[in-house]
Amino acid sequence: RCHHPIPEMLDLPFLPFCVLLGGLGFVCVAFVSAWCQYWRGGFALDGSAQMFNWHPVLMVTGMVVLYGAAALVYRLPPAWSGPKLPWKVLHGSLALAAFTLTVLGLAAVFRFHNDHGTPNMYSLHSWLGLATVLLFSCQWLAGFSAFLLPWAPTWLRALYKPVHVFFGSTILMLSVASCVSGINEKLFFSLKNGTTEYKRLPAEAVFANTLGLLILLFGVLVLGALARPSWKRPDADSPDSCQVPAPLGGAHW
Amino acid sequence: RCHHPIPEMLDLPFLPFCVLLGGLGFVCVAFVSAWCQYWRGGFALDGSAQMFNWHPVLMVTGMVVLYGAAALVYRLPPAWSGPKLPWKVLHGSLALAAFTLTVLGLAAVFRFHNDHGTPNMYSLHSWLGLATVLLFSCQWLAGFSAFLLPWAPTWLRALYKPVHVFFGSTILMLSVASCVSGINEKLFFSLKNGTTEYKRLPAEAVFANTLGLLILLFGVLVLGALARPSWKRPDADSPDSCQVPAPLGGAHW
Repeated sequence: RCHHPIPEMLDLPFLPFCVLLGGLGFVCVAFVSAWCQYWRGGFALDGSAQMFNWHPVLMVTGMVVLYGAAALVYRLPPAWSGPKLPWKVLHGSLALAAFTLTVLGLAAVFRFHNDHGTPNMYSLHSWLGLATVLLFSCQWLAGFSAFLLPWAPTWLRALYKPVHVFFGSTILMLSVASCVSGINEKLFFSLKNGTTEYKRLPAEAVFANTLGLLILLFGVLVLGALARPSWKRPDADSPDSCQVPAPLGGAHW
Repeated sequence: RCHHPIPEMLDLPFLPFCVLLGGLGFVCVAFVSAWCQYWRGGFALDGSAQMFNWHPVLMVTGMVVLYGAAALVYRLPPAWSGPKLPWKVLHGSLALAAFTLTVLGLAAVFRFHNDHGTPNMYSLHSWLGLATVLLFSCQWLAGFSAFLLPWAPTWLRALYKPVHVFFGSTILMLSVASCVSGINEKLFFSLKNGTTEYKRLPAEAVFANTLGLLILLFGVLVLGALARPSWKRPDADSPDSCQVPAPLGGAHW
């Protein structure tokens, strides 16, 4: 008896959207890699500027693209029925892979700074970025402890779940803002001389600015997909679904 | 028959949250003004660096704080009952005030660049910022035409409303990312010499970095408040409320 003709009409199917989003994520990783390879001298593990180049590639791949994939796992229609555990393991594993790349990306920039006598952690970009990674590590540990380890009681899971969901979107927003400020900062550092000055908008600047906008678009699409009510898993334990049984012992809360 | 003991327990009341958020918004405006007044030489209208200083103050006040206030109008409990028109007028007026400050903030930076022979629109910050303002102008015009002018048919309003809501949150996210990249960029421009170099983290850098994090916190809190289901106005025309009557003429869609 709920008639929603217009929202139903607007309902994009999730899977084509997912293919599009996957393509956009691939383009983001390809763009940041191409930028570092073609204009910034490629990659190395020796503490040089080529070592720094791992930083943007690993952060975009980990904190944006893989993180976005992890966030969307429960929106896949096959995850809506059957046992939830395999999907939890996939969600946690993708997030752990994202976190691993992120830590390697941080190691690359700290090593580069230390080898060049540059102080760490002074710019707003670095403060925001590190805050984002710290939040992400808390989020992963708390999610693992509450939802994958078997000991958390149901009431604690239900209490923590909306907090986990909120910080999931928040951390993605913060990492997109970190990427944008980092690309902007790197271009001011790198494009200083003559015809390649940033303010003359050389090809590299147009390319990397475009990369920044593509990362933003990716983040906005993931956040929009997460917020879309009709794409949410109709969970028995979700407060939205009106299917929550009165819990045992609920009277004493 | 929907039992939600835990979400109910977690339900913060909106008004105390609003007071806290208003305080945080005030602190953001005070911080950006103090930064420009105390460390960047104050304000003027003569095309100098003192004219540029209006740019951060007006953008933070308009695109973040006033914009956030406009976005939250329908979450005020008094807006939940009675005629909706006064609240629409308040929402549209706050957004128009935000837009006016934003245009003045853009005028300040374009005038400063032009008077100094600096090119406009080359950095990622400028691309992102201008894209955000253009989206905001489309959003305001479309919202005004669809919801305040009397001619839009009900089906068009229902069709456009979720789009307006989505872009409302998106534009706030983009403006917060613009602010962060702008503060970061300005600190690299300004803090170049000796003991006040950005990488030595002088007092100004700590202060302005903190401003950036406060703006982010404000944005995250507004986006969280907007997403919170229990704070949404139980609208007759909302697709969430299961109260949409089958619209007249719906059969021919």
